[in-house]
Amino acid sequence: MQDFVFHNSTKLIFGKNKEELVGQESVVYGKKLLLHYGGGSIKASGLYTKVVHSLHEHGIEIFELGGVQPNPRVSLVREGVALCKENDIDFILAVGGGSVIDSAKAIAAGAKYDGDVWDFFDGKAEITDCLPIGVVLTIPAAGSESSNGTVITNEDGWYKRSCGHTIMRPKFAIMNPVLTYTLPPYQTACGITDMMAHILERYFTNEKNVELTDRLCEATLKTIINNAPTVLADPTNYEARAEIMWSGTLAHNDLLGTGRIGDWGSHDIEHEISGIYDLAHGAGLAIVFPAWMKYVYKHDVNRFVQFANRVWDVEIDLNNLEKTVLGGIKKTEQFFSSIGMPVRLEEVNIDDEYFEEMAKKGTERGPLGNFVKLYEEDLVEIFKLAR
Amino acid sequence: MQDFVFHNSTKLIFGKNKEELVGQESVVYGKKLLLHYGGGSIKASGLYTKVVHSLHEHGIEIFELGGVQPNPRVSLVREGVALCKENDIDFILAVGGGSVIDSAKAIAAGAKYDGDVWDFFDGKAEITDCLPIGVVLTIPAAGSESSNGTVITNEDGWYKRSCGHTIMRPKFAIMNPVLTYTLPPYQTACGITDMMAHILERYFTNEKNVELTDRLCEATLKTIINNAPTVLADPTNYEARAEIMWSGTLAHNDLLGTGRIGDWGSHDIEHEISGIYDLAHGAGLAIVFPAWMKYVYKHDVNRFVQFANRVWDVEIDLNNLEKTVLGGIKKTEQFFSSIGMPVRLEEVNIDDEYFEEMAKKGTERGPLGNFVKLYEEDLVEIFKLAR
Repeated sequence: MQDFVFHNSTKLIFGKNKEELVGQESVVYGKKLLLHYGGGSIKASGLYTKVVHSLHEHGIEIFELGGVQPNPRVSLVREGVALCKENDIDFILAVGGGSVIDSAKAIAAGAKYDGDVWDFFDGKAEITDCLPIGVVLTIPAAGSESSNGTVITNEDGWYKRSCGHTIMRPKFAIMNPVLTYTLPPYQTACGITDMMAHILERYFTNEKNVELTDRLCEATLKTIINNAPTVLADPTNYEARAEIMWSGTLAHNDLLGTGRIGDWGSHDIEHEISGIYDLAHGAGLAIVFPAWMKYVYKHDVNRFVQFANRVWDVEIDLNNLEKTVLGGIKKTEQFFSSIGMPVRLEEVNIDDEYFEEMAKKGTERGPLGNFVKLYEEDLVEIFKLAR
Repeated sequence: MQDFVFHNSTKLIFGKNKEELVGQESVVYGKKLLLHYGGGSIKASGLYTKVVHSLHEHGIEIFELGGVQPNPRVSLVREGVALCKENDIDFILAVGGGSVIDSAKAIAAGAKYDGDVWDFFDGKAEITDCLPIGVVLTIPAAGSESSNGTVITNEDGWYKRSCGHTIMRPKFAIMNPVLTYTLPPYQTACGITDMMAHILERYFTNEKNVELTDRLCEATLKTIINNAPTVLADPTNYEARAEIMWSGTLAHNDLLGTGRIGDWGSHDIEHEISGIYDLAHGAGLAIVFPAWMKYVYKHDVNRFVQFANRVWDVEIDLNNLEKTVLGGIKKTEQFFSSIGMPVRLEEVNIDDEYFEEMAKKGTERGPLGNFVKLYEEDLVEIFKLAR
């Protein structure tokens, strides 16, 4: 087990109607608030009205910035930064899913920085300060509600890049599973895939003695796998929606990665695809992960056997461990298919036109991944396996 | 799943030599520090010298209060409170295990209260403020390093009582598994039992839809069960000591109890025994828990079947679920025995002399437990099963 610091101080407020507490939780951080959100869904659902009402009840002045898109853009982040600076904003409230929260985090960091916010994403500057942010979560997926990171896309060259700092963790996250009832099946499934991918990235490590975190990862994966069919078949099932929502947070609050170095190659590879094709992140991961597994499993057959056995209940064939491994990978792929995710690039009409370009761009700052280091040519092979 | 708030902001600093960071972490909270510890073991091991050196390096003035006993006494807490008030102490550093940390928490609350600190324990006052505390952990067991609670014994009547508030959570806990190498086998086993009991108290709930937390509990229990024989056979095995230490914190940082109401009857019953007999808390739990299980399992056979199957790998006999349950309870008992714990009162020379008195005192503020409500006569029956 490697040395680690675990320090996640996000206050998670979980349950029915908890969005009514947003004013009370926000006012702690100031009276001038940037309300950040995506499209019209929070207005259609009535959530917007509830949030604004609660904020007004606590005497909070609201500045608004909607329009966050999936794969949130740096152009909107820059707009948000300007708004914060011009109006001396105290606090940013993100109402939405991972894209909105990531955008809010980037704005929060940019608001306390003199240069261009993209500097944090291409490694030209380090985050040292940021505005406090809070979250009303509507899409369980990215885990951004208590994570320290953000992923932003730069339209100028379609670079999708991440950065992170523990001070970017939201101060609070309000999590009401009822708010996820109206998520369409495809988006629900993308979220499920994303949270599973967050665990898988941590699961595939070269650290040998990490039994507790291995088992916590397996526990969370099994819970997601068991509840996914229920939320898709019965979208207003509170209990299943709650299990999925809670799993999504734990998948990415750093607990499941303590004492080990995760991989994160598949995330980076997916960023290249969705940077160019504007594919939903979860769908991209459902395509990349099985291909990545097929490409790297020989690096540590035993770890893949454990995964197949403990997560997917594949019986261990001691005379043919590879068969066990491939059984686990197949089950992973079948599961993603069963919840309506694509598992091949051709299913989303992506051909090999940009394989070389994506591989080159993805590795221009060095090889990807930690479990196995992946170079330009490896990415091309993984793209081919994903066809 | 019940609504919940999860907010645990203790900074956990885990790994080799991390005690060297204690000055740097403490100075954030002030320059006048109460150093609280137990007997001479931290001096014999050299830990005391290292801690004092690091504190002095950061210009911290140290006031000392050693002498914390197992089942920490309110008389020493009162001494600590007086010391803090007289010297305007900013911060309390607990170097030790659960008893030292619990004592430090009680002092921290008492230092900010005008009345007698025992008021918090017998329900006469609510905690509203406390001094910040930090921890260098030497005994993985109580989970007090990131929990919100404290248990103190009042020699006047031998009442053992708990109280808690989220502001009592330590600001940081330094956790170096190497510091646990010198723990004697009996104390190691007591700690293991204590952390398992913390999980079991949460596991046995009447809440039906708590799949994620069930699985996280099972994951942590399995890790402890797998690593216990190793730390006993090979006390300087870093990896196993690390798994045990990290498990002990997670067992009691509230994560495993989210969305459910735990039981806590066995803890309360054990407090009655160790309040009178000064038995180690873990040893008391190893005796009480199997007896409690035998007494209550019919209340929810399925939950006990799940426990037997998922934690102890007892095959489910669908034609005889009770046999499966009893198999799980037997394995629990055998495990405690195997690590050197007593599992019957007679093994620690406790006869039935005080059964009635302990049952009466234990229930004088109302019935114990939540999974099944236990009244005076139930406690007597459980004591009998524990003979």
